[in-house]
Amino acid sequence: MEYPPRVRALLDRAKADQGDAVAVRAKSERYEGILMPHTSFSGEDVLTVKLPNGYNIGIAVGDIESVEVTAKHTSSAVQRHLPSATGGKPTVAVLGTGGTIASYVDYRTGAVHPAVTAEELVFSVPELLDVCNVRARVIYSIFSENLKPENWQHLALEVAKELSTGAAGVIIPHGTDTLHFTTAALSFMLRDLTGPVVVVGAQRSSDRPSSDAASNLLSAARVSVANLGEVVAVMHGETSDTFGQIHRGTKVRKMHSSRRDAFRSLNATPLGRVHSDGTVELTDRALPRARGPTKVDDALDLKVALASFYPGQPPTQLEAILEGQHGIVIAGTGLGHVAHDLIPILHRATRDGIAVVMTTQTLQGRVSMRVYDTGRDLLKAGVIEGQDMTPETAYVKLMWVLGHTREHAEVARAMATNVAGEINPKIGLDEFAE
Amino acid sequence: MEYPPRVRALLDRAKADQGDAVAVRAKSERYEGILMPHTSFSGEDVLTVKLPNGYNIGIAVGDIESVEVTAKHTSSAVQRHLPSATGGKPTVAVLGTGGTIASYVDYRTGAVHPAVTAEELVFSVPELLDVCNVRARVIYSIFSENLKPENWQHLALEVAKELSTGAAGVIIPHGTDTLHFTTAALSFMLRDLTGPVVVVGAQRSSDRPSSDAASNLLSAARVSVANLGEVVAVMHGETSDTFGQIHRGTKVRKMHSSRRDAFRSLNATPLGRVHSDGTVELTDRALPRARGPTKVDDALDLKVALASFYPGQPPTQLEAILEGQHGIVIAGTGLGHVAHDLIPILHRATRDGIAVVMTTQTLQGRVSMRVYDTGRDLLKAGVIEGQDMTPETAYVKLMWVLGHTREHAEVARAMATNVAGEINPKIGLDEFAE
Repeated sequence: MEYPPRVRALLDRAKADQGDAVAVRAKSERYEGILMPHTSFSGEDVLTVKLPNGYNIGIAVGDIESVEVTAKHTSSAVQRHLPSATGGKPTVAVLGTGGTIASYVDYRTGAVHPAVTAEELVFSVPELLDVCNVRARVIYSIFSENLKPENWQHLALEVAKELSTGAAGVIIPHGTDTLHFTTAALSFMLRDLTGPVVVVGAQRSSDRPSSDAASNLLSAARVSVANLGEVVAVMHGETSDTFGQIHRGTKVRKMHSSRRDAFRSLNATPLGRVHSDGTVELTDRALPRARGPTKVDDALDLKVALASFYPGQPPTQLEAILEGQHGIVIAGTGLGHVAHDLIPILHRATRDGIAVVMTTQTLQGRVSMRVYDTGRDLLKAGVIEGQDMTPETAYVKLMWVLGHTREHAEVARAMATNVAGEINPKIGLDEFAE
Repeated sequence: MEYPPRVRALLDRAKADQGDAVAVRAKSERYEGILMPHTSFSGEDVLTVKLPNGYNIGIAVGDIESVEVTAKHTSSAVQRHLPSATGGKPTVAVLGTGGTIASYVDYRTGAVHPAVTAEELVFSVPELLDVCNVRARVIYSIFSENLKPENWQHLALEVAKELSTGAAGVIIPHGTDTLHFTTAALSFMLRDLTGPVVVVGAQRSSDRPSSDAASNLLSAARVSVANLGEVVAVMHGETSDTFGQIHRGTKVRKMHSSRRDAFRSLNATPLGRVHSDGTVELTDRALPRARGPTKVDDALDLKVALASFYPGQPPTQLEAILEGQHGIVIAGTGLGHVAHDLIPILHRATRDGIAVVMTTQTLQGRVSMRVYDTGRDLLKAGVIEGQDMTPETAYVKLMWVLGHTREHAEVARAMATNVAGEINPKIGLDEFAE
């Protein structure tokens, strides 16, 4: 895209053009880096400079005191179009869905808006192309809080299509808010994966200096060509940039609203790491690529609710939530409890053929309903133990299980059977809050 | 209480009686310790021995191969009644509410049942009496999942009564499941505390070798005589027994279903530690004892709901949850979001005078609704930011705030005003998952 007029005028005065190494002075700070091309997510009247650490910084033209060219046109970052596939490097599919990783800051309002094309997204991190050839498509441009279960089904089909037409792996840039719901859904729906399905997000948009968009996307690219046949989330491992964490899709959860290392594996250790030198380290728990073909089983029963118990919750509220549902996942307290005045309502629900699954709002640790009277009463009422699944993973799994059967014994058996690493039979001492 | 006949017969054969140092052989293991008296929570046909590490172990009579007396009657653990107050030591009130800390295992069924009297509870940890004189009452004997907001109100009045009649501090043994709801409620309801209000639980019942009941209760006693004027939760700091953690009542949450170090301060560091040598270390953020008198403000509006957003949540479900409520706390995603199809429902709710407060289901980090379009739309709809409060603390606070006013601007102002340490204006990097 052409630079907007004010940016163009500034660059013309400095005799600078995209790809040049520049030093920009703004608000008493000096920024050195490569002048990036203008894209639809650069923001109006914003100059984007790629810093030596790989981050893009967006500088408002109004704040710029000077631009100085320190070297002409040295970077590979200035290719205006994705290069065509080159021999030797695997081809990876990028399926854009939206979110912060594909967002830009509107400097007039300070708000973050979603970007438009997957090509722009890939192009903003040209180092990707050192790892793999990329074919990119935009599936959605949606903040992840607006994604629906129907979107998970569609996405599963698109992933399988890519893997069956030669993609060595699939990268899905995704909003972080509900990223772990999507990874869980894809984990249950996709079988015999011939390559990694890497869902990746950013906690800070790519126009902000602290953005994790570039480094997460680069980590995702490295994982996408590894010998891995699982759905994973790849995100920052800690607050600095030393490594990326590879989380199993059914065990990951967003545990902080803003930190770059917000994603954690719960009741399990991560499947591996992407080190800063680019190497991908996988534990031997990680499944290798399957011979394929990759199969899709996207049946979901959408009539499932997810509800947390709390002191003072009125029984009538639980009745209202159950209305018209085929299943419910409850995030109870502790080992899997609710107040005794709710148990008759759950008993009636199970008698009416509604599958009731108990998880814990502590998020970590296992549900264990044989220890206390409350749990035993719940088991007698036909409630199914959710093992060590997070409420979110149990919710997605119950939709998927009920998509195949509503027979109580079969549902109970399926919920207790490990399908995609969602049940960890023995939680280790080191598997807490990390 | 008398020993049950089978236990009595066994002890008579060994010429052993309570208070003796004994060596018991059972299931090929040898246990040395002090023979404890029988209590209503010892369990039927169970011999209780206090091990050198302070834990009580309950050994089923049927498993016992031999009992040998190694020393007669040397322990202070055999006093059958609580001693009357002695000079020099402060008197602390123990208000029993139930839970695992006051539970025993029924060896016939393997289930855990609540104990009956607070005296029995105190008596099981005689080291308490080295720290303070104790006056004990049972307020409830309830698993904490069954406690209601009305119980919090009653408990606040009882605490104030104890502090106004000479108690140097109050210890509340409590089930762990909803312990953090109770600490939050007492934090808002009690002002000008002349002494610590220490809510304490156990993750493993006192008849199990791994029980944390004794060590947590002893830590609680040490905190109860410290110079502290806050409501706190005192629980194990890590998996071994090196220290107890002192958590502010509004910042603590149960984060694991079974670990002894399940309780964590979120978006804040703990207020202090109880070291294994018995010393209590408090940070300078901890409020000292107030001159008093301690005031109670227990007004609560019970018409408040707590609900988590999830992808696929039907708008009709949210409408049903809002029915008849004066307020709702939502645990949204990320910085405080819900799907766009729910926003009109929340807008209608605020127009109808329902207070809507947004928190985050990540539990950690702050709600920040000015960053993305979704958040800005929610703010326009009249939704109040829940700052860095957990959903649970925000729920209790909203009940308390609505107990005083339903005027929107006042509610918004009160929710944004720090009352009891529930709002941390700046969350430090070390305040994550610990």
